[in-house]
Formats: sequence, C-alpha cells, structure tokens
Amino acid sequence: MYAFSKSVEQLRSSEIRDLMRLATQPGIISFAGGMPNNDLFPIKEIDEIFNNLPPEKKKSAFQYGPTPGYPPLLKSLKKFLKKKGLPVDSNKLLITTGSLQAINILTKEFIDPGDIIITENPSFIGAISVFKSYQARMESVPVNKDGIDIGFLKKKIEHLPTKPKFIYVTPNFHNPAGITYSKARRKELLDYLGDKNIILIEDDAYNDLYFDNEAKEMAIPMKCNEPDNVTICYTGSFSKILGPGFRLGWLLVNEEIYEKCELIKQAMDACSPNFTQVLANEFLAQGKIYPYLDFLRKEYSQRKFMMDKALKKYMPDYVKWNEPNGGFYFWCELPPNYDSSEIMKIAIKNGAVFVSGKTFDPAGVKNNNFRLSFSNMDKDQIDKGVKIIADSIDEYAKGL
Amino acid sequence: MYAFSKSVEQLRSSEIRDLMRLATQPGIISFAGGMPNNDLFPIKEIDEIFNNLPPEKKKSAFQYGPTPGYPPLLKSLKKFLKKKGLPVDSNKLLITTGSLQAINILTKEFIDPGDIIITENPSFIGAISVFKSYQARMESVPVNKDGIDIGFLKKKIEHLPTKPKFIYVTPNFHNPAGITYSKARRKELLDYLGDKNIILIEDDAYNDLYFDNEAKEMAIPMKCNEPDNVTICYTGSFSKILGPGFRLGWLLVNEEIYEKCELIKQAMDACSPNFTQVLANEFLAQGKIYPYLDFLRKEYSQRKFMMDKALKKYMPDYVKWNEPNGGFYFWCELPPNYDSSEIMKIAIKNGAVFVSGKTFDPAGVKNNNFRLSFSNMDKDQIDKGVKIIADSIDEYAKGL
Repeated sequence: MYAFSKSVEQLRSSEIRDLMRLATQPGIISFAGGMPNNDLFPIKEIDEIFNNLPPEKKKSAFQYGPTPGYPPLLKSLKKFLKKKGLPVDSNKLLITTGSLQAINILTKEFIDPGDIIITENPSFIGAISVFKSYQARMESVPVNKDGIDIGFLKKKIEHLPTKPKFIYVTPNFHNPAGITYSKARRKELLDYLGDKNIILIEDDAYNDLYFDNEAKEMAIPMKCNEPDNVTICYTGSFSKILGPGFRLGWLLVNEEIYEKCELIKQAMDACSPNFTQVLANEFLAQGKIYPYLDFLRKEYSQRKFMMDKALKKYMPDYVKWNEPNGGFYFWCELPPNYDSSEIMKIAIKNGAVFVSGKTFDPAGVKNNNFRLSFSNMDKDQIDKGVKIIADSIDEYAKGL
Repeated sequence: MYAFSKSVEQLRSSEIRDLMRLATQPGIISFAGGMPNNDLFPIKEIDEIFNNLPPEKKKSAFQYGPTPGYPPLLKSLKKFLKKKGLPVDSNKLLITTGSLQAINILTKEFIDPGDIIITENPSFIGAISVFKSYQARMESVPVNKDGIDIGFLKKKIEHLPTKPKFIYVTPNFHNPAGITYSKARRKELLDYLGDKNIILIEDDAYNDLYFDNEAKEMAIPMKCNEPDNVTICYTGSFSKILGPGFRLGWLLVNEEIYEKCELIKQAMDACSPNFTQVLANEFLAQGKIYPYLDFLRKEYSQRKFMMDKALKKYMPDYVKWNEPNGGFYFWCELPPNYDSSEIMKIAIKNGAVFVSGKTFDPAGVKNNNFRLSFSNMDKDQIDKGVKIIADSIDEYAKGL
C-alpha cells in the first residue's frame, strides 16, 4: 500500500531477529549469539563508578553531549588507543552509538546505490545488513586461515565493471571465521591497495580479546601502520570490553573523512548516549579496564580451550575448524554437499543451536559451514552442547 | 580527493555545532540551546533505581537487547502512552536512539533522492538536517498561532510536480514557534489529508510539558484520533521528560510501516542502549515519572512566566511573540527588514545569545525571527538576559 523508498523495498524479514529468538529460548544450549557473557560484565566496577560520580559529571550524563563524543571520553579513549599504537593525533576520533553505527556512517559517506563494496566471505552479518540498506552491490572474497585471499581479490577487482568504493575487513579474531590475519597477509593487502584509491575499512571490535601474547602481537591494527598511499578507516567498540548495552563504539579516520562523518552522525542521532559515555570514560580513565580485560581474556580463553577439546572429542573427522587465538568464534567446515541449515534443525530438536554458514555469506548461499560462539556460555554446558551438535551432524549424514 | 556519496556531498559544515559551542561559552547568558535544564534532572530518582536494580536486570543493562526495545520498557511505555489515549494496541511501538533517530528511520523508509517532504516553516532543525541527509526536496508551509496554514498548504500541494511523501509537523509546544495547534486546525489538517495518501509525521517530543490544563487538553496527539483515511506516524522522546543523555525516543506506527522500521533500525545501531532503557523502564514502571513531570511543568512554567514578563518589560513595541502554553521556546518576530543574525552578533558582544530565525527555515533564508529558549536557564538570569537582547535590538535598529 505504501510507496516505500527504493533502499527499503528490498529489505526482507529479519533473519537476525528470528535467530536471536531461537538462541535465547530456555532449555536450549545456544552457541548462536555473538554477545559477551552475561555473567562477566564489570558490574561491581560500574556500580562503584556510578556511586562516586561527582554531581557535575552526573548532570552531564543526563544531558545532550557534543556530536563527536563526551570530551573526557574522547580524551581517555585516545590514550587507550594510543597505547595500541593507533595514530590518534594525526587522525580524528568520533564516538558512535555502537560500532555498527560507525560502519553505517562510513557507508553513508561513500556509497550510492549500486556502488561496489568488497567484503570478506564469510563476513559480519551486521555489516552485511548495513551495506544492503544502502543498496550497495556486495562482492565477496574468500577468507582462509591467514586472511583474505589476495589472489582472488586481485582477480575480482580486475573483473569488476567499476572500482569498489571500499573493502571491509575484520583482520583480528574474525567474526565468524575465527581467524586472525597473518603479518604477511596484512602487508600483501596494503601493498596491493597502494595507490588504488580504494578505501580500507578495518573493523576491530575484538582487538583486546587475544588469548596469548603471540595473538596480541598479530592483532596490531593495520591502521597503526597505515601507508601514505592507502586510506584506512578504523572502527572499534566497547561492546566486547564493557557491554553492548552501553551502545558505544568509535571510528578513527583522517580529517577529510571525519568532517562528513560528524555531519552524518549529527543527522542520525545527534550524539551518542552521554549517560553511558560518562561511565565508560571513568572505566578507562580510572584504569579499571586493564585488570578487567585480563580477567575477560582468561575467561574466554578457557571457554575456547574447552570447546576445542569438545570438538576434537566429538566431531566427525570430516569436520574442520581453525582454533581461534582470540574473540568468540569457531568456524566449522563441513563437506561441500552438507547443508548446515538442515543440521541446525536437527540440533535444535536435540537441544542445541548455532548459526548456519549462509547467514555470513553476503550472497546468502554458501552453507557448508557453521559458527559456534563460546562467549555467552556456561563452561559446564560446552561439552554437552558440542556433543549434541556432533550427534546431529551424524544424524544428518546418515540421512544423506 | 575522496569520492563521497551524493547524499553527503551537499552536507555543509555544521551550523548546529558552531551554535552549541557559542551557546555554552562561559560568561554568556544563553537562550540558544534547546536542552532541558541541567539542574532539574531526576538524579535522585535514578540513583535510587540504579542502586535497587536486581542483579538480573543489571546484567540486562549491560547486554544487547532486542531491536524493537527492552521488552519491559515497551510494556511500561505502552501503559504511559495509553493513558494519553494513544492507540498502542492497534499500532506497534519501536524504541529508538532518541526521537531524531525515529525521524531518520521514517525518512529512510519513505524518501528517495528528490522526493518531496512538506515541513512547517519554521521547523525543527534536527529534522531539517535528517531530510537533507536523504536528499529530500523540502517544501515549507508557514505556521501561524493556530498551526500550519491550511490554505497555503493546499495551494502548495496543488502546485507541486509530484505528491509529497509526507508532511512533518510538531503540533504541540512547537520548536521553535512556541505555538500549539488548535483543535480546529488539527481537524482541518486531517480532513484535508483524508484519502490523499500523504503520510503525516507527528513529532510530539514536548507532549508532557504543558503549563496548564487547557494546554494539556489542546495537546492531545492527533494520533489519538487517527482517521481511517490518514496514516499518522507518531514520534516521542525521553529527552525532555528524563534526559537527552539517555538517547531514548520512540515511534508508534501501524504494522506495515513498523516492519520496515525495525529492519532499518537493525542496520542503524542494532538496538537502543539497554543500559538507559532498563533505567527508563523503572522510572516509568515505578510511577516515579508522574511527580517528576509535575515538578518539571512547574519549573518550566515559572521560567516561561518570567521570560514573558521580561519581554513585555524590555522589548521594543514592534517585536511580537506568542506566549507559549508549554515547551521551551518563545519565537519572536521582528519587522520584515530586520536581520536577526546581525542582532545576534551584537547580543553576543553584549553577553547574551539566542538562535536566529533562518536556522529554522528549511530554505535557510527567512531571518526576521529569533528563538529564545527558557529551559536551560537560571531563573535569576532571565530578566538580565532579555534586557541585553532588547538593548541589542535597539542598538541594531539605530544603525539601520
């Protein structure tokens, strides 16, 4: 009946919503949700911060803030990012309402309908939904254990009718692929992009969740070594290191790109929530974040270890995966003729759920993979849940 | 250097930002900001709520929530809106990251580049910036003391090359015009729109801030009496009744429109901040909002009274205004040849600041008006500040 806009006509009913409903059903062991663990939030720390806020800061929490972000948070976040080697002085930082908004802002800045975006395959479902909402043409490039396939990328770009506006990658603790780009692959990517005038969007939402020092070293953002002839737009998030309920993320970009970002942000929601920005600032500025991150890394690392053990114990030989060195996810590969959606149906019947592969394929097709998230999980459920899934694969295979 | 998208190319440097910088300079009496009063936030109430949250609710505050909103807040907000007579059962409610996002979502849903939007003149600057960011063609219709000029509206629509996609109005305690639509004008508008298939967006961010019972009666949303042959999309906000720092607003629309809204919202920021939603829910569900609103109305009403008195005392005879019956604003009219930007420069030099008229003209031209906000103001500054502005008008007039 209504004359919807062209960008909206093609949006279909919500796969993510349906999945989340399923994933949070009582009585089911859920490896589906990509959220932090409900029992690991820094509740005590935030209680303490809240109850010691000076009156003036509390008033600020209730009020509008400047569009770029709550100034003390911009300052403390700069310090936090500078420690990672990020070029916070030569670039500009914008606080966003979650890092999905950061991706949305950058997409609005560069994409007209039909413009090409290169994504990884698999890729973050949130970013895929953003790109769709701007009527972008997505072209995906496979990811292997060291990162995006450079040979494939070159061929892809050569054969496109127009140059892609940007490449969207998540080099660290990839969602869903569970991999981290090798140093060599990062260099290859930057070398290839040199002078091509194709922007690189580096989504680094999981940066702090490495499981060992080698992973920490590997996870140094490409933005830290941005060559003169490549433009990197860097996005990050408080969702995994404080809480998604704060809806705080950021983007770090050069001044020319930043100017438009601020204007776009202003017309999106005026400013990010000051209430949570005030709390996040204290969390950083008081240094509470550092011991908390040590705690988080230990907790998630334990879960990863337990899941790897359970996978080795129960999975049929033909199921392959890459042990992640950080983040939340195992990405499991089935034989090419297997359909993970069908396996998921069986698994749900048996009491466990995950996300099927095609959800993360920008074209929504490739389905012989599935994602297991170990983040929001009681440790004592991992073994049981993985067994249910392994048994469900067996059950499926028998019916082939 | 960069190939920006078409929708972004035309965004210019930030008038709002410059204004806010000016408005918050120390030592200047600012009637510029459209924000609630810094000293009137319900800080004690929120402290009490926060410190009595059961652990499970606190965990929810840190976590992602469903895209439509934190379910208990959807429930308590429905109850709150139902009391106003809003059709919450036959429509669907979506919690947004401030009501500006609600307007943004609706614009994305309906507007392709070049599509026509009818706005009031003057109109809310935030909405103007949203409409620009979607490359809409804005056509404005003057507002007089009873509401939008229906005769002008009819002629305007008759002469347009294509039918407008929607009309955006703020019938209650208008920002910046300070007026409230009369019952007759509301009816005329709805009668005229009947069967025209032009959507009405009713922005009702100030609904609860009436100054007397007559104003309360007048401010009954049009959405409460939505005729079968007109579609009304209703937006509201917690910014003026709790705090803008919570970044919470809502939209109430029919199911067909809602389905797209939810998908758009999902790609914008996944969900609104759960942290502030959990607190807002308790504020409503525990009924703390009702005495707080009584308190707010009294406080703002006192400021309005004092400003009206000061205007009468100091303003030259040729300055006209309408005494508002709710909200935050006086909208003052100067003789046609006066330029309020020039007066503002003089006023700033003399120690007070306001917003010049053209800021609220979608075409950015008409400038013989200015907006005085009495909301974020110490009572004892009003008289002094208005005198400075009146003197500045005199000073300007002498130079004409």
